[in-house]
Amino acid sequence: MLNKILIANRGEIAVRIIRACRELQIATVAIYSEADKYALHTQMADEAVCVGGPQSKDSYLNMTNILSACVLTGCEGIHPGFGFLSENPKFAKMCEECNIKYIGPDYKVIELMGDKAKAREVMKKANVPVVPGYEGEITSVTQALEIAKKIGFPVMIKAAAGGGGKGIRIVNEESEFEHNYNAAKLESKACFSDDRIYIEKFIQKPRHIEFQILADEYGNIIHLGERECSLQRNNQKVLEEAPSTFLNPEIREKMGEVAKRAAKAVNYKSAGTIEFLVDKDCNFYFMEMNTRIQVEHPITEMVTGVDIVKEQLKIASGMKLDLIQDDIYISGNAIECRINAEDPDNNFRPSPGLIKELYIPSGPGVRVDSAIYSGYEIPPYYDSMIGKMITYGATRDEAIIKMKRALGEFAIGGVKTNIDFQYSILNNRDFVKGNYDTSFIAEKLVMNNA
Amino acid sequence: MLNKILIANRGEIAVRIIRACRELQIATVAIYSEADKYALHTQMADEAVCVGGPQSKDSYLNMTNILSACVLTGCEGIHPGFGFLSENPKFAKMCEECNIKYIGPDYKVIELMGDKAKAREVMKKANVPVVPGYEGEITSVTQALEIAKKIGFPVMIKAAAGGGGKGIRIVNEESEFEHNYNAAKLESKACFSDDRIYIEKFIQKPRHIEFQILADEYGNIIHLGERECSLQRNNQKVLEEAPSTFLNPEIREKMGEVAKRAAKAVNYKSAGTIEFLVDKDCNFYFMEMNTRIQVEHPITEMVTGVDIVKEQLKIASGMKLDLIQDDIYISGNAIECRINAEDPDNNFRPSPGLIKELYIPSGPGVRVDSAIYSGYEIPPYYDSMIGKMITYGATRDEAIIKMKRALGEFAIGGVKTNIDFQYSILNNRDFVKGNYDTSFIAEKLVMNNA
Repeated sequence: MLNKILIANRGEIAVRIIRACRELQIATVAIYSEADKYALHTQMADEAVCVGGPQSKDSYLNMTNILSACVLTGCEGIHPGFGFLSENPKFAKMCEECNIKYIGPDYKVIELMGDKAKAREVMKKANVPVVPGYEGEITSVTQALEIAKKIGFPVMIKAAAGGGGKGIRIVNEESEFEHNYNAAKLESKACFSDDRIYIEKFIQKPRHIEFQILADEYGNIIHLGERECSLQRNNQKVLEEAPSTFLNPEIREKMGEVAKRAAKAVNYKSAGTIEFLVDKDCNFYFMEMNTRIQVEHPITEMVTGVDIVKEQLKIASGMKLDLIQDDIYISGNAIECRINAEDPDNNFRPSPGLIKELYIPSGPGVRVDSAIYSGYEIPPYYDSMIGKMITYGATRDEAIIKMKRALGEFAIGGVKTNIDFQYSILNNRDFVKGNYDTSFIAEKLVMNNA
Repeated sequence: MLNKILIANRGEIAVRIIRACRELQIATVAIYSEADKYALHTQMADEAVCVGGPQSKDSYLNMTNILSACVLTGCEGIHPGFGFLSENPKFAKMCEECNIKYIGPDYKVIELMGDKAKAREVMKKANVPVVPGYEGEITSVTQALEIAKKIGFPVMIKAAAGGGGKGIRIVNEESEFEHNYNAAKLESKACFSDDRIYIEKFIQKPRHIEFQILADEYGNIIHLGERECSLQRNNQKVLEEAPSTFLNPEIREKMGEVAKRAAKAVNYKSAGTIEFLVDKDCNFYFMEMNTRIQVEHPITEMVTGVDIVKEQLKIASGMKLDLIQDDIYISGNAIECRINAEDPDNNFRPSPGLIKELYIPSGPGVRVDSAIYSGYEIPPYYDSMIGKMITYGATRDEAIIKMKRALGEFAIGGVKTNIDFQYSILNNRDFVKGNYDTSFIAEKLVMNNA
């Protein structure tokens, strides 16, 4: 087992990792920015090293300083958490070069999965379904239409060189195709000086469902079931649950097997997540792989009893998985509400500042992963997520009721939070029925809320 | 289901009951003393009524005021919690007379189980083993010695009219009998003006193991396994765990069946606990029945997944148990450490006062039932227990490691606590081996500590 590691992160995930280390008797070194001197992770770790100024680029993204801190404190490994350097292949590579164990997959895998086109290619080869599309050269509108008809409407026409939503056209039927094709080409040319276009199936109102993977260094791979992550605002997850109400046992098993195949295809090691888009007919398509721990990992822990962060640490220590797929049994339902210091009535503007009063709920079936305390000042430099409220129930209804009870108890004075917004999701009739997709928050909540 | 109840208690158990009510959509009325205006239970309940002065007798034991508050707020039932009026048959009877549902068993059962001699009689009749003893009249030392020999040494000679440890002699062998018999009679006469004595088997260094019972109004009774409660200081439990390391599956099943028989014998309804003394050879003897929720109920909740307070409320609402014995499966291990505001270095003297700083641990497998918050002033009038730390692990070792991790995080500034004392139990080699009995704390910890 690793003896001592550095945690290259802050906030609740840093605290979460410290907890796992302590239970495995691994000594911990926190890093902190000048703004985080009084942060909980700084206080809780066995040692703490200031690595730079308040801005992330000067501290939590400062690879040289972090590696120096690691070497100076005699750490054998680095846990990157999520965000910051957690999907930076250069950092993972530097760790390897410094003979420091990076607690995650090989840097080449991070690099490969970070390149969406290459990742798509690898997955196609491994027989992992990707969103149907045509990657070859398109030379005429006639050819393009043939391709679109083969894929099946609706399709999405995208600038091959594109990004940021420019040069994208959704085409619902054949009669609209030529017009949109030409428009996309023109826009693409104007924006990127490149009028090559690319056609893929347009997945309408998909679900975002992801599978948690654990893989050791000996080729053993298991999945821990899925997380339903369709409740998003501006592509940021807001509330997650496990299991998904949408999957039946057959689809779940099939997706789990595909997820393992996807991980196997890149010789994955560590905890990872395969994200799928799922259409209304339960067709599912590989979207991306997250090569790190996820914010929403606790809901999987609640329904499986597996401590995913400990598993990461054990895998990084060279231990074999002591679980096989048949050991994994999904029991009950778990929900996570992300608690953000933000103002939903003011376009979710971040609301940093001093926490003057605080009561964090507890009781049976309630877990709060956070890094706040009464008297803590939330700095304005980082993500507005200040904690995660996780509830567990034998049934989904019970998990929802518990979440409402717990949110009702949560008292944070001094900053604005999204607690009432989360409450409004839990009270929505469609949410209660499990009837929602990625368009839910934008269409049913934020509009009403604005 | 009951629609609205009054909670005739304070502190963490009042908060625990409010949480269960909220999840069952039962409205809650808290009562509070003048010292508890800012207590968490007062703030958390839907309504709160001040019932009297700081002294318990004026408020939490003030039956008339409590019943008036109940009637005035339109409550249909009263949950007594533990301590205070929770085992007072008069109060339960008054509730019945006022047509208020007492959330507990019938007052006659409370009365019967409160009379230790009568309880012993009932249990003997029901074929529940009690500590072997002679209840008839003893007229001579010769007769007494015959009885002692029949019971088998060591025996305990007790004043029949006794209490508070007066008139008690432990006799290890025949040669010491006459001297002790005479001394007990003299002391008994001097203390109680009554020299009748009573002889029973002396159980050396017993374990205190109790079984949780649930019984509905339709004769259905189940048990939820046992709690090991041998770690006591001055007959106050300090740390409890489930399951006990001492019982094998056969004894466990046998004791569970006996516990159900004991409950059945008094036509028990509600949650209740059968306490047993267990000797080193796994002989077990009925000690008493607690006709209320126990402090240590959460460890049973952790290993069974059953919410005992909700079950109480459902039973009191006239619902049938929706669990049968075969549904109950003990999974993993749970430990509870009682967190007291007291000074272990000063003979555990209570340490009330202002909580200036507070950090309550969380994370996977950790549950804290408490009623404290940063800025809360612990009043000097009540029990010094301010919370309960409960941890759960797939194994006992994991539960212990988690407890040590969590206790290490617990930060309470402004008052003294027994956290370090709890830590010293968890670090004791015999505790780690599960090798302890009711003499453990007095012999192995407090002596060293004093």
